[in-house]
Amino acid sequence: DSQLTLLAGPCAIESYETCAEVADTLKEVCERLHINYVFKSSFDKANRSSVESDRGQGLERGLAILSRIKHDYHVPIVTDVHESYQCEPVSQVADVLQIPAFLSRQTDLLVAAAKTGKVVNIKKGQFMAPEDLIPATRKITDYTSKILLTERGSSFGYHRLIVDMTGLIEMRKAGFPIIFDATHSVQVPGGYGGHSGGNRDYAFPLMRAALEIGVAGIFAEVHPNPPEAISDADNQIYLSKITPILENANHIFQEHRKDAEEMAANGLL
Amino acid sequence: DSQLTLLAGPCAIESYETCAEVADTLKEVCERLHINYVFKSSFDKANRSSVESDRGQGLERGLAILSRIKHDYHVPIVTDVHESYQCEPVSQVADVLQIPAFLSRQTDLLVAAAKTGKVVNIKKGQFMAPEDLIPATRKITDYTSKILLTERGSSFGYHRLIVDMTGLIEMRKAGFPIIFDATHSVQVPGGYGGHSGGNRDYAFPLMRAALEIGVAGIFAEVHPNPPEAISDADNQIYLSKITPILENANHIFQEHRKDAEEMAANGLL
Amino acid sequence: DSQLTLLAGPCAIESYETCAEVADTLKEVCERLHINYVFKSSFDKANRSSVESDRGQGLERGLAILSRIKHDYHVPIVTDVHESYQCEPVSQVADVLQIPAFLSRQTDLLVAAAKTGKVVNIKKGQFMAPEDLIPATRKITDYTSKILLTERGSSFGYHRLIVDMTGLIEMRKAGFPIIFDATHSVQVPGGYGGHSGGNRDYAFPLMRAALEIGVAGIFAEVHPNPPEAISDADNQIYLSKITPILENANHIFQEHRKDAEEMAANGLL
Amino acid sequence: DSQLTLLAGPCAIESYETCAEVADTLKEVCERLHINYVFKSSFDKANRSSVESDRGQGLERGLAILSRIKHDYHVPIVTDVHESYQCEPVSQVADVLQIPAFLSRQTDLLVAAAKTGKVVNIKKGQFMAPEDLIPATRKITDYTSKILLTERGSSFGYHRLIVDMTGLIEMRKAGFPIIFDATHSVQVPGGYGGHSGGNRDYAFPLMRAALEIGVAGIFAEVHPNPPEAISDADNQIYLSKITPILENANHIFQEHRKDAEEMAANGLL
Repeated sequence: DSQLTLLAGPCAIESYETCAEVADTLKEVCERLHINYVFKSSFDKANRSSVESDRGQGLERGLAILSRIKHDYHVPIVTDVHESYQCEPVSQVADVLQIPAFLSRQTDLLVAAAKTGKVVNIKKGQFMAPEDLIPATRKITDYTSKILLTERGSSFGYHRLIVDMTGLIEMRKAGFPIIFDATHSVQVPGGYGGHSGGNRDYAFPLMRAALEIGVAGIFAEVHPNPPEAISDADNQIYLSKITPILENANHIFQEHRKDAEEMAANGLL
Repeated sequence: DSQLTLLAGPCAIESYETCAEVADTLKEVCERLHINYVFKSSFDKANRSSVESDRGQGLERGLAILSRIKHDYHVPIVTDVHESYQCEPVSQVADVLQIPAFLSRQTDLLVAAAKTGKVVNIKKGQFMAPEDLIPATRKITDYTSKILLTERGSSFGYHRLIVDMTGLIEMRKAGFPIIFDATHSVQVPGGYGGHSGGNRDYAFPLMRAALEIGVAGIFAEVHPNPPEAISDADNQIYLSKITPILENANHIFQEHRKDAEEMAANGLL
Repeated sequence: DSQLTLLAGPCAIESYETCAEVADTLKEVCERLHINYVFKSSFDKANRSSVESDRGQGLERGLAILSRIKHDYHVPIVTDVHESYQCEPVSQVADVLQIPAFLSRQTDLLVAAAKTGKVVNIKKGQFMAPEDLIPATRKITDYTSKILLTERGSSFGYHRLIVDMTGLIEMRKAGFPIIFDATHSVQVPGGYGGHSGGNRDYAFPLMRAALEIGVAGIFAEVHPNPPEAISDADNQIYLSKITPILENANHIFQEHRKDAEEMAANGLL
Repeated sequence: DSQLTLLAGPCAIESYETCAEVADTLKEVCERLHINYVFKSSFDKANRSSVESDRGQGLERGLAILSRIKHDYHVPIVTDVHESYQCEPVSQVADVLQIPAFLSRQTDLLVAAAKTGKVVNIKKGQFMAPEDLIPATRKITDYTSKILLTERGSSFGYHRLIVDMTGLIEMRKAGFPIIFDATHSVQVPGGYGGHSGGNRDYAFPLMRAALEIGVAGIFAEVHPNPPEAISDADNQIYLSKITPILENANHIFQEHRKDAEEMAANGLL
């Protein structure tokens, strides 16, 4: 609780080299700043807007790359699962199984993930109210108490997400650590013809605001060259900018922790 | 195209008897009114708000009941699939495989459903714009051209859906028949503590409005005793009211067909 | 109640000639179809997105033109008021004083309009729930019972309105006739740089859907040459198309009246 | 720019005594913290949900009280105007004329306010996108350059506002100082029968998040005993809690200023 958690990495597992480049930088910055770092990348982009979009390495090759990253950089791994059968093999490598936002209501997937004994990170559906995460967590508390809840924006008309900062406070009432996903929150879903767009420039300000509200961690997709990324090209953060971003984010996190004690003493939290 | 299509039945397969009671009435009314009737019921409520909620019969027993209904009432069957592995066994019984709204972006599920050769009914996600269905259909047009697209409301703030009637017109541009789901459109998602509520009284008016906009078919959940239903108790239509509802709906459908020719001649459509 | 009401005319009073051309056609069609026709035009576009946009004739010249139209075509007049002081002079000419949607919560304006003894047409704010019109009407029921309530869409994200057809049913509970504004409902607010755009093609389908839900009247802006109109160029209906539109709308209205009796007898309304 | 601005006071002018009590505390805290303090209170609640709600003192008595507060506490005054005729008399007392959110598109009111030569604070309509404020400001830049822009939430379904933190950044592009209204942003509009409710507990967290995004000032309604206030009883901040809130807010503001320089140097802003 005294350390910020960071789930970050390239959106999709494009190659070992890309993953390694990101892991290398993030591992080092996070060690220096005492941030808990978890490497994130997806073996399959299972819900692309368009079928023409690249889906990544697939389960087998993807897990092999994640396994190498884990071994080479000594970092825990988070990756997402899309159907129940994937949970067991993914849990052989990943430390955190992530339930994608669209799938946050799929009971079988939640239960299969929970039964692996790994941490389960449930992303709040874009169609869900924050308090609706409480019954979602109850689907799996018989199997695990290692649960993270992640906010990544709510539907606001067509082709637009909006982050309800008060929702982060509501989500805390479920009793689990809250993660703010800074890069998916700035997606423009299905907004540019067949693919989703995004507004990268807003990821950092929203991250700052969420940290000031009070979250346990930050989720961010980071890529050496986002415009060339096979997915989320418009919202991934440039690896070259991540160091000052994390320094600032960690500073706000630590300041907020100090303030929180004083605010609690003043009956403000 | 000259006949209205109806996809209807109890939300969940509670028992053979409930299914049979509904199928019996709907079959008879639809035959009299020359409506294409497809029996609908779900073997698994895979995305309940709460884990305490009953999920129904499960795949094996559910398919057995659907098979008996098909045999006993000579009706085609529509039911939903939640993970790719279900598509093949479900296609042994069902004539239409339905992709739930939350899953409308899951490429593997769409493709698995399409590969069965059965009709695929894609429900528009509550988080999708109507035009976003076009890339969704392109994911499967290599495998099938038998596609239906169903509207069931869009997220409008928390705990509320809204039906964009102009969206039905947008959805037609994908080139496939459009179905309006009158009962899920009046759901109040996650609105009553751990379960979803609904406003049954609005299902029929919305059905009328959608028919006046111009749709190929209606989807409706119908139950002999909705308050006792294991799911969607607040929005299923009473079986005892379905006859006058369908008579009226069919009347509007037929009037609209006649008007449409005249309107087209006047450059209004 | 057995006749459809139509409030229609060019958005802004551009000239006597434009108003007369529209009034002439609409008067004649409505007489033939037994529709209650009320001529609508605005003397001032008081809430343009941009200050560069033309605001029309202003109060004095605008009222003079409305007065000529009233005299020459023997039609009642509806026009909108923006500040309390306008209500008295406007009531010298207009039979219906319209409260713009943005101003639907301005108590002084509502009361000043009501005190004139003329009919008051309250447009539902884009930011209001349908049931919020009930307290709005209570602000003036001490002064008048001649109230109309008009739906013109609700905010749905940025730059987009959506019509909640179930809201028309909710609004009826206030006990006053409900009007559906078909052309402002298809506005794209502030969507095209400094001015508002629109989607004219959706006005007629939405009108049809609203009539099938059940409304007392239709509001529509009609112009001989919409692209040249000084306001709402993208959503006004072409005068040349209004005759078949009104024939169809009136047909649906009359069919709905017949159906409504039967539906009521069947406990469906 | 190096000092935080605070526009705060009781929502409505209930009495000289209430105003004085609030002004006294806020003046003192703000002096100590080097915050620019502007006393805010409304002489008329012109757009109450319900006519039964108290509207306050009215123009004449209200201005007299504001004048006494200005004289007794040496504080500048901000108050809102609802119709054009009010701008001139209000400008005799007020230093800032505030355009209510519902009225942010009323050109006459904006221009009348601007012509007084006083500062004009335009609240963004709940129905407006942030970039729509740019044409709104252009309506008055011929008359004044002393403009503030205030965010107070956007419509998010019925009976709910949501604050788009990225909107604060968009609004800055208009070139004027941005104020965040922490207490109206947590209103629940028209939510409790005939009146608006609110969620006071979220005002302070949202204020913190907005300061972390970067705003020039904070707007907040503060009352000695909010539950007894004649308006906004559910969202005004307790006067007894305002000191630690302002200390914390000012701390975040100052930290953000320091960070902003560094972030700018790192290409992050």
